[in-house]
Amino acid sequence: MIANILQKPARLIVGLMSGTSLDGIDAALVRIQGRGIDSKVELLHFLSVPYEEELREKIKELCSEEHSSSPKISGMNFYLAQHWSEAVKEVVREAGLSMADIDLVSSHGQTIWHMPEADPLNPYRPKSTLQIGDLSVLSKATGILTVGDFRPADMAVGGHGAPLTPYADYIMFRHKEKGRILQNIGGIGNCASIPAGAAPEQIIAFDTGPGNMIIDQAAYELSEGRLSYDRGGEWASQGKVDEGLLGEMMKHPYLSKPPVKTTGREEFGKEYASGWIRRAVEKQLAPQDIMATFTAFTARTIAASYRDFILPGTRIDEVLVSGGGAHNAALMKMLAELLPEQKIMASDEAGVSGDAKEAVAFAVFADHYIHGVPNNLISATGADRPAVMGKLALPW
Amino acid sequence: MIANILQKPARLIVGLMSGTSLDGIDAALVRIQGRGIDSKVELLHFLSVPYEEELREKIKELCSEEHSSSPKISGMNFYLAQHWSEAVKEVVREAGLSMADIDLVSSHGQTIWHMPEADPLNPYRPKSTLQIGDLSVLSKATGILTVGDFRPADMAVGGHGAPLTPYADYIMFRHKEKGRILQNIGGIGNCASIPAGAAPEQIIAFDTGPGNMIIDQAAYELSEGRLSYDRGGEWASQGKVDEGLLGEMMKHPYLSKPPVKTTGREEFGKEYASGWIRRAVEKQLAPQDIMATFTAFTARTIAASYRDFILPGTRIDEVLVSGGGAHNAALMKMLAELLPEQKIMASDEAGVSGDAKEAVAFAVFADHYIHGVPNNLISATGADRPAVMGKLALPW
Repeated sequence: MIANILQKPARLIVGLMSGTSLDGIDAALVRIQGRGIDSKVELLHFLSVPYEEELREKIKELCSEEHSSSPKISGMNFYLAQHWSEAVKEVVREAGLSMADIDLVSSHGQTIWHMPEADPLNPYRPKSTLQIGDLSVLSKATGILTVGDFRPADMAVGGHGAPLTPYADYIMFRHKEKGRILQNIGGIGNCASIPAGAAPEQIIAFDTGPGNMIIDQAAYELSEGRLSYDRGGEWASQGKVDEGLLGEMMKHPYLSKPPVKTTGREEFGKEYASGWIRRAVEKQLAPQDIMATFTAFTARTIAASYRDFILPGTRIDEVLVSGGGAHNAALMKMLAELLPEQKIMASDEAGVSGDAKEAVAFAVFADHYIHGVPNNLISATGADRPAVMGKLALPW
Repeated sequence: MIANILQKPARLIVGLMSGTSLDGIDAALVRIQGRGIDSKVELLHFLSVPYEEELREKIKELCSEEHSSSPKISGMNFYLAQHWSEAVKEVVREAGLSMADIDLVSSHGQTIWHMPEADPLNPYRPKSTLQIGDLSVLSKATGILTVGDFRPADMAVGGHGAPLTPYADYIMFRHKEKGRILQNIGGIGNCASIPAGAAPEQIIAFDTGPGNMIIDQAAYELSEGRLSYDRGGEWASQGKVDEGLLGEMMKHPYLSKPPVKTTGREEFGKEYASGWIRRAVEKQLAPQDIMATFTAFTARTIAASYRDFILPGTRIDEVLVSGGGAHNAALMKMLAELLPEQKIMASDEAGVSGDAKEAVAFAVFADHYIHGVPNNLISATGADRPAVMGKLALPW
């Protein structure tokens, strides 16, 4: 059955992504032709199924040292896979196809822990990453060959296991004449710089810092739980940036660290955000000004990281923004002001929906796995060598 | 590379097993010829690397609801895989072979949670099982294709995810003319009945009840912590069985439950054993008589379960004993007396070392995976259908 897939000029693949923001499960139905870096990728259909609040809270417990446990993880590992299988069926049905048409499912899994560095004091805490959503359960529930759990393989060859999407960005967005940055703004912000006509090893990719994480937390706390995010950036657009507070925030040591670098909820999560909200309240800032300042923080960290680490060596013509942040008009406006020489646009304008981009990337990785072609980008993850990431579960 | 393996008349596979007793990692180097149920399995070399006490304690924490957490599991998932890769290299070296000769590694993983039934009150706790020891880490560290994490697939098709070994027992020990029972006596006792010339669906497999668990606990308590088990059954062989106490013990409801059935530490663990030790001390039994009675309890539960659930429908000629219990001469003698019409022997005498048998079984399962052949036994696990269990990680 794998041999059959390899002989097909085009494969139909469903890519699944469930991000650290815990919004829900994204499912992208993709057609891929060609092989390796010459793959041609076409998005046929996309949907996103939001998680119920209770499920989101249960997953959040697993991301916490204090509230996680083996039985919770064991149960959720099966639960999520079963849950996601419904999204696979749904995206296939909505596209007017049948499950028998689909060659592969690819699943990123739900990250519940990510330690990019070893704990020097504890030999049982090497650098590691933990994604759940069991592949056998998913494969038996859909009846489709399933590849997933990509990150550990990159870590096993010395990488950080992140970021992974720049390699797929390269495949989908590289341009002969235009230098491009692909900027994703999810919970965390990450970018990939793809110079005009670049080879894969010329890509620079790293996490720029917080994405929506602290904006969302502020919206939640300042609305006393009524809002989970600042829809369209409306709240922030009514406020004024407090340059004093913003200057303090910009002193975070992560921002001056040169790439390759990754960050996460450990560094820019709830505690971090709540601390700055308290600080802002002490300074008697109005809620809309806090929102504006936090939104500016994300914009400023992105622009500063380009200025420090990308623009000195590379001409960039376009910044293609994806993730929830692309829908935040206040944030997009700030980015345009901070980067006057680049065209700031949603990645949709370059052909692949920004919302779908990550799920599409994982479809690309699974196709590579099946062909035995490396799918990590060592300039992005810092790995010692290219490697084929992923694990394969059989449906029969 | 997978296609190459499939063309080989014989595959060299290292099977890894790390059991719930947390003794250490077992590595069996196996040659397999043929395919599916016609596989011919030959053990070339076996070794067992005991865990250091500290590692054992750290793994035990992961088996506890209270002491486990995502970061601990994430770290140990990588640590164990790296640790086990050394056992793979060692068993290959000791066998006088080179890593390039090895076609596959197969890893059971370390079970840290196993819920054979769903929690009816918690939708996020479906029945599930959780094995750690990341397959990508293991595969990249050894440079060998690696299959593992078998149990979830059986659960995904409605099974209990256990017991798995009866299927491998069938492949290795079935006999055209002899009816055989494979009896493992670890912490818990489990058996697989393989009638002469049987088809796989004729196998009956279930947990017989306690194995060494309560004998070990009694040895520990009665020796005031000096002994952790009754070596060779020497202590028990000096005593006299108390038929009154034994009769009371035989009333345990598990024993009359018809198969398919499984049990564990929850039912026959420390508390259970300590209760009966107190009862025996009240009755003023001498320590050696308590040891004899508890040893007889294990023997009697095994024989009774054959009498009730196997022998009425099947002729059995031989009982092949594996696990620690095979080294307990008192227990083996009692079994021989209780089953006069069967030949009671260590499984070693039938060609596969009882100590290595489980690790060998997982080598068989990986070979099946690569061939796309189902490797669960639905009469043993209760699954709805045969399924290919396992996940595949690539070394390159």
